[in-house]
Amino acid sequence: MKEISKQNSKLDEVTVSTKPVFEGKIISLQIDTVELPDGSTASREIIKHPGAVAVLAVHGDKIIMVDQFRQAMGRCELEIPAGKLEKGEDPLEAAKRELQEETGYVCKNIKLLHSFYTSPGFADEIIHLYVAEELESGDASPDEDEFLELYELSLAEAEEAVASGRISDAKTIMAVYALKLKQATGTFGL
Amino acid sequence: MKEISKQNSKLDEVTVSTKPVFEGKIISLQIDTVELPDGSTASREIIKHPGAVAVLAVHGDKIIMVDQFRQAMGRCELEIPAGKLEKGEDPLEAAKRELQEETGYVCKNIKLLHSFYTSPGFADEIIHLYVAEELESGDASPDEDEFLELYELSLAEAEEAVASGRISDAKTIMAVYALKLKQATGTFGL
Repeated sequence: MKEISKQNSKLDEVTVSTKPVFEGKIISLQIDTVELPDGSTASREIIKHPGAVAVLAVHGDKIIMVDQFRQAMGRCELEIPAGKLEKGEDPLEAAKRELQEETGYVCKNIKLLHSFYTSPGFADEIIHLYVAEELESGDASPDEDEFLELYELSLAEAEEAVASGRISDAKTIMAVYALKLKQATGTFGL
Repeated sequence: MKEISKQNSKLDEVTVSTKPVFEGKIISLQIDTVELPDGSTASREIIKHPGAVAVLAVHGDKIIMVDQFRQAMGRCELEIPAGKLEKGEDPLEAAKRELQEETGYVCKNIKLLHSFYTSPGFADEIIHLYVAEELESGDASPDEDEFLELYELSLAEAEEAVASGRISDAKTIMAVYALKLKQATGTFGL
């Protein structure tokens, strides 16, 4: 394989202008005009997002999930606990906060698995995915417009839920992969 | 565990109204007002997207990737071949098309691994992730505003690229997980 350069300036695009279109409570939208490597220009519709955290919380041999309605999907979905970063908030603290708020669980052991962009073609949203172990149960305290139901799934149940589509989002499927690899190889993640 | 219901009507939100805000070339934005389970209302900023396909293309023991500039990230990223669905296009045909256009490879064997939502909190984008094997090389034919460079990575190189952040998007990390599980357990995916 050719060596992977740290960056590849031959492919770089240069921002010529940015037009703000919408500023919402959570996301904003702008249209960037960019100069392409061949000197022509193109426009890019870009969503700005504050970033988020998600937690693969393992309790014994179970994975903690929350069921919630997702307007974008028009239905409920089982997901790992997750939420947006508050302004200036440290992702690790946010992960502990979201886990406690959504599930009541407090963890003694938490570490970053990956940070990843959800939709690099149009959004700057980045999710920091943590693995939390050694959980202690407590009272959940969801946001006032958040209605959740808590589930604990075995790996087999989680895999079934992926197959049936009841789990169908990127961060949660990635968490199920990480847990399956842990059971196959002894370590989480890649 | 309590049984996972197919749906959970206790958590359902009901759309009261939809206000279109922006209609772009690729995405559109609307603000939905929803009635929550307790009868109160909330607003949801929703991005509509046509959906996309992505291909984990395996060539011998290598995984095919393309390097491209991502305006939302402000830098280049290595990703598996992917692209938006054309209007009315079958996802399987789209996956073969994107693989050929971006990499030149034609595959004899392709199957769906998962379909997943990238950002269920604010977007309806769904990605259909395929595994393609038995590849034959040919000429790439990228879109005119698409500047790409082809790479073939071993699993170890892909894992290093995840660790360094050169691979940092959901679909590509999921593909690396699927390949690693294949090597650990003999089958792709969950």
